[in-house]
Amino acid sequence: MYYIGIDVGGTNIKAGLIKDNGEIVFRRTVPTGAAREGAAVAEEIGKIAAAVAVESGVPLSEIDSIGIGIPGACDEKNGTVLYTANIDFMKFPLREAVQKHIPLPVHLANDANCAALGEYVALPDPPSDMLFVTLGTGIGGGIIIGGKIYEGAYGIAGEVGHIRLCPEGRLCGCGRHGCWEMYASVTALVRDTREFIEKNPASALAASVEGDLSRASGKTSFVLAKEGDADAKKIVDTWISYVAEGITDLVNTFNPSLVLIGGAISREGETILSPVRDKVYRDMYKSYVPFPEIRAAKLGNDAGLIGAAFLGKK
Amino acid sequence: MYYIGIDVGGTNIKAGLIKDNGEIVFRRTVPTGAAREGAAVAEEIGKIAAAVAVESGVPLSEIDSIGIGIPGACDEKNGTVLYTANIDFMKFPLREAVQKHIPLPVHLANDANCAALGEYVALPDPPSDMLFVTLGTGIGGGIIIGGKIYEGAYGIAGEVGHIRLCPEGRLCGCGRHGCWEMYASVTALVRDTREFIEKNPASALAASVEGDLSRASGKTSFVLAKEGDADAKKIVDTWISYVAEGITDLVNTFNPSLVLIGGAISREGETILSPVRDKVYRDMYKSYVPFPEIRAAKLGNDAGLIGAAFLGKK
Repeated sequence: MYYIGIDVGGTNIKAGLIKDNGEIVFRRTVPTGAAREGAAVAEEIGKIAAAVAVESGVPLSEIDSIGIGIPGACDEKNGTVLYTANIDFMKFPLREAVQKHIPLPVHLANDANCAALGEYVALPDPPSDMLFVTLGTGIGGGIIIGGKIYEGAYGIAGEVGHIRLCPEGRLCGCGRHGCWEMYASVTALVRDTREFIEKNPASALAASVEGDLSRASGKTSFVLAKEGDADAKKIVDTWISYVAEGITDLVNTFNPSLVLIGGAISREGETILSPVRDKVYRDMYKSYVPFPEIRAAKLGNDAGLIGAAFLGKK
Repeated sequence: MYYIGIDVGGTNIKAGLIKDNGEIVFRRTVPTGAAREGAAVAEEIGKIAAAVAVESGVPLSEIDSIGIGIPGACDEKNGTVLYTANIDFMKFPLREAVQKHIPLPVHLANDANCAALGEYVALPDPPSDMLFVTLGTGIGGGIIIGGKIYEGAYGIAGEVGHIRLCPEGRLCGCGRHGCWEMYASVTALVRDTREFIEKNPASALAASVEGDLSRASGKTSFVLAKEGDADAKKIVDTWISYVAEGITDLVNTFNPSLVLIGGAISREGETILSPVRDKVYRDMYKSYVPFPEIRAAKLGNDAGLIGAAFLGKK
């Protein structure tokens, strides 16, 4: 059996035909055109789903369902998108809109939850439950319980980027002060790096971007920290300690056996993972039970696509 | 069918025979004698279980199982207590010890988790999932998912008292700084009240306990706040805002439809609940889904007993 997965981002809509074993056998990408009306974006999603089916040459009878990952909140039961930050999808009946183009069951879920499911199904020896945290523009979370995405009562469980790290801290887009993602997202790391460069124009960090703040990325401080620059190391260490703080909260709450850290920055691997483990294992509530494994996610950008596809998998 | 519930506390062991409908038809309490060896406490638990069965007059064939709530971490699979803070139960085979006295299945769980289950089964119209937070000496938590206690990978999920509220904050017994329970437990409220009285010996709060710090309890500030005392109101408001902060974190993570607040202090009712709701609903991540209900738990001290009894209920 095959599954169509669609990962709707602010920039692109990625679609793929995925086999039972998680292999992506066919791909298509189109620009989201997020500034358009929701109906136009929905039509794009319907068309790309149909195109994947037709162009791949796989007969519709061999495609089980379509799963769509949305950067926002969904009501899977009613097939609607409740809300997204970047696309005009307020209480939008996306299932119905997509089924006008292709007559298959359509499943909807939050994109971070889809990524969690994608990473989960790719594990060689999956535990029953898993915690997935993705560090990017914000911080997304996905909770797998009993092999399934845990959606909560209304489909928005896992908004872990908005647990509060610092009282009276930085104002988050969600309206709360001091949210975890204001300190431990890649956006936060970039901001910390740029703020440092601005204040220290003679620093090695400033030289590394030739004084051009816009060139400072999530990698900038990591690169210089590895070369031994003390300023960069301090920025990286502080950021990593913020990452660990939130994970400790989640570990205390869920007591998972496995935590996966995703997002492009997780490619830094042990540079991040080793100090995160040290801090989480030091600070977590001790009850003489094993420490959770903390590893980097494996699938990278494809996790959301594969997870979305597998929403319909029994 | 009947169930034996046992709630093991630092001071007393409470046991009861509970009917299918949650009614406690027979009770016994003995001192825990927590200073003794674990084996002696376990023998006390076994004896009280047997006594409940014999003295109630209900034949053993009508008693399904024994459930035991422990102030610590349990390994239900192997029937052992992994660890408790106050009783000598390190990696202790409690199931085996109890079954020497009475030949019934024995289930073990954390006491806050049992209280959560007890409150849950007493709901007239239980949702599938529920979050339970109990404010007392510390802060305990219980997560109900799909009608069952969510135990995590190793049985200690729900240690929500140890999510971090304040970086570099007060040192918690768990070793971490700034844990939620250092700010929002009843212990924290009492400490805040006593600190204020110590610094302000001429205040109405000081007068209300006749300057005797040991007389200041969790109620002291609530009583004076209701009488309009501004100092007491400030202490209460600050404490309530800390309660709300942690609940907001949990709501963002779990997206529950129902949050129950337990512990004796929850008898303050709307005095606590109304400002907690205001703050949680203001600060939680918004996705155009309904706000969770936030209510006081109902069963009080019996929640743990009833929940423990129902550990074995199918």
